[in-house]
Amino acid sequence: MSGVSRRRLLGAAGAGVALAGAGAAAAACSAPATTPSPSDVVPFRGTHQAGIITPAQDRLHFAALDVIDGDRAALQSLFRKWTAAAERMTAGAEVTPGGAVNRNPDAPPDDNGEALGLPASQLTITFGVGPGLFAKAGVDRFGLAAKRPAELLDLPPFTLDDIDPALSGGDICIQACANDPQVAVHAVRHLARIGFGTTAVRWSQLGFGRTSSTSTTQATPRNLFGFKDGTNNLKAEDPAGLDEHVWIKGGAQPWLEGGTYLVARRIRMHIEVWDRTSLNDQQLLVGRNKGEGAPLSGSKEFDLADYELKGEDGQPTIALDAHIRLASAHALGGVKILRRGYNFVDGSDGQGHLNAGLFFLAFMKDPAKQFVPMQSALANNDTMMEYIEHTSSAVFAVPPGLGEGTYWGQSLIE
Amino acid sequence: MSGVSRRRLLGAAGAGVALAGAGAAAAACSAPATTPSPSDVVPFRGTHQAGIITPAQDRLHFAALDVIDGDRAALQSLFRKWTAAAERMTAGAEVTPGGAVNRNPDAPPDDNGEALGLPASQLTITFGVGPGLFAKAGVDRFGLAAKRPAELLDLPPFTLDDIDPALSGGDICIQACANDPQVAVHAVRHLARIGFGTTAVRWSQLGFGRTSSTSTTQATPRNLFGFKDGTNNLKAEDPAGLDEHVWIKGGAQPWLEGGTYLVARRIRMHIEVWDRTSLNDQQLLVGRNKGEGAPLSGSKEFDLADYELKGEDGQPTIALDAHIRLASAHALGGVKILRRGYNFVDGSDGQGHLNAGLFFLAFMKDPAKQFVPMQSALANNDTMMEYIEHTSSAVFAVPPGLGEGTYWGQSLIE
Repeated sequence: MSGVSRRRLLGAAGAGVALAGAGAAAAACSAPATTPSPSDVVPFRGTHQAGIITPAQDRLHFAALDVIDGDRAALQSLFRKWTAAAERMTAGAEVTPGGAVNRNPDAPPDDNGEALGLPASQLTITFGVGPGLFAKAGVDRFGLAAKRPAELLDLPPFTLDDIDPALSGGDICIQACANDPQVAVHAVRHLARIGFGTTAVRWSQLGFGRTSSTSTTQATPRNLFGFKDGTNNLKAEDPAGLDEHVWIKGGAQPWLEGGTYLVARRIRMHIEVWDRTSLNDQQLLVGRNKGEGAPLSGSKEFDLADYELKGEDGQPTIALDAHIRLASAHALGGVKILRRGYNFVDGSDGQGHLNAGLFFLAFMKDPAKQFVPMQSALANNDTMMEYIEHTSSAVFAVPPGLGEGTYWGQSLIE
Repeated sequence: MSGVSRRRLLGAAGAGVALAGAGAAAAACSAPATTPSPSDVVPFRGTHQAGIITPAQDRLHFAALDVIDGDRAALQSLFRKWTAAAERMTAGAEVTPGGAVNRNPDAPPDDNGEALGLPASQLTITFGVGPGLFAKAGVDRFGLAAKRPAELLDLPPFTLDDIDPALSGGDICIQACANDPQVAVHAVRHLARIGFGTTAVRWSQLGFGRTSSTSTTQATPRNLFGFKDGTNNLKAEDPAGLDEHVWIKGGAQPWLEGGTYLVARRIRMHIEVWDRTSLNDQQLLVGRNKGEGAPLSGSKEFDLADYELKGEDGQPTIALDAHIRLASAHALGGVKILRRGYNFVDGSDGQGHLNAGLFFLAFMKDPAKQFVPMQSALANNDTMMEYIEHTSSAVFAVPPGLGEGTYWGQSLIE
């Protein structure tokens, strides 16, 4: 067969990523590879996993998987295979060398090839483990109970929650972010495939547009309420803030040192109702103006909100129940989180409306001390709750980054 | 309120698009607009509607709507409003001048603003009408029965169809294509909003990545089976082919002259089963190789398939039941269609798999003479049917392009 096409191995090599066997495969390459710029590849290994403080990519495919069969050894084997595949894919390469147009055409190709020819697209793949990996229905399936961090707990119910259990939880999560959604989908699909027999996809969510910035180099995007979202988000350029609020240090579980927790909440937005709300009411409810994204106490997006300021009527300019006040470190005793959410539309709701909203993702050191008080305040007091509905909920422990030669979850599973 | 942000009016004006009131609104503009290059705006008016032979943009939001209330005058009024809004949005502007941060803050903003600051992103919005607009349950609601084209018929059932009526049909369709999905979603959301009370969203589909090229200037993309799709598609650069297969001429309904028909089919792909199929079998089944996308009778993607060629075993090199043979003009007496589909992932299927596939969109002169024989041949003989499932079906008549001062469906509704 002619035309053995290969996916950007030259580019991956140019970015300094060493891939076993890549050299030999590249020699067999006849089709020209798209050469990505080095900035198109996000390093897979480092102190922390990529995809957390990496400048938020534009597109998301997130999947939660359950472990359906196998023992600890099977899991360990799977984590090794996943790591090898993920590292290659983030470098813009196929799952295995020559994987899409493999040398044994009588076997299924290791890589289905839908990302052939596409650049790495800043793909990051972030791996986490849910409570179910440590104990499920009271059974410690993998002998990991002693390694369960005390902080890894299902979230409590919140006022007005409308959680669908089938779209919640999961033993393992895979967050794939990229600037090309085909690259993110390719990554999730192939990790799910490698897990066949051991894991099964429990739920998955596409996000078409980022709603947060995680770097001061990025403009603040808008959510489906039309407001800039996450102006005061923690940013990659604030290592002290990240150390204080995101990265786990000195915890009881050494395997999680340098890791973090991920909270995922699918938030359906009733955009049709929102669209009938006056601009004034929208702005009062959020606490910012719509055009600039400035707090109502100021005039520019990054002006610090002045929660003490009062108008001529003696009332606070930023209302006591404004969304930004309720979610602020000011109101929550200094609590902050790193938000990394995405807009979604999942078809229609069968009642004449789009099924749209925000897939909320946030990283933090301790969900019980950060997300829970924040969400409790919002669920109980935020007028925005009249326009939204939390329909799924999950929490995962996210191991630290990978040193050379290590694999996802190694310190947990070995 | 400060920071009256405006969406690219300067850019829109720079692209030569005249917008009533835009000058005055731009004068009030304080935030800098992102200036799109002229090539970022696709002209809204022309001989044919945009979004058909426009080089296929990367992302899609498609919606089918039902008319739920109102008479012919209400429809006429809605079509006018839709046209005005669509023309502005495709130029990269808000739905109305100053629409997102409107001058009456006690009213809901005309434009929710989620696309503020984003470039036009080559947005096209294509409008079509389904059989239900002409008669529903035997009732001619709008006095349009005499204008119903004989060719506008619901598609017949095909072998192995698994059609969900709730995700099928529709009185009106809106196809929004753009290189930024937030721009496409913004467009559909606002047209749906303008229709409140008259129309309701029946179903909607996001497509994350194009699976067809509609111009020789584009590389052929890959579908979720990993194959290049639509290599032999009709292209914008083939006006004779388009005249023969796509554009309606000399039909019985003058209002549809220069228009076309759109067939939409949501095709669920069982990618997990596909991923267990050998490369050889995949290639035999498709009739092309995977790497290059060449027909098995040739070596390069654009080599013409030789359906007569036989191998040493005396059997046809491109099998008698290969997908490309069954769907070819060669096998179908010269029939061709213009494909314009998109890959999708709609979460998971609740059985451990991704709910993924291809949202098939195709334009043609007469569905009964083009799509029906093609799909009949595929449904009855294509081995690929073991891996796919058609889950929705719709057909729409697509009016011709708009001259200056005209609106969508004017020649139909007046």
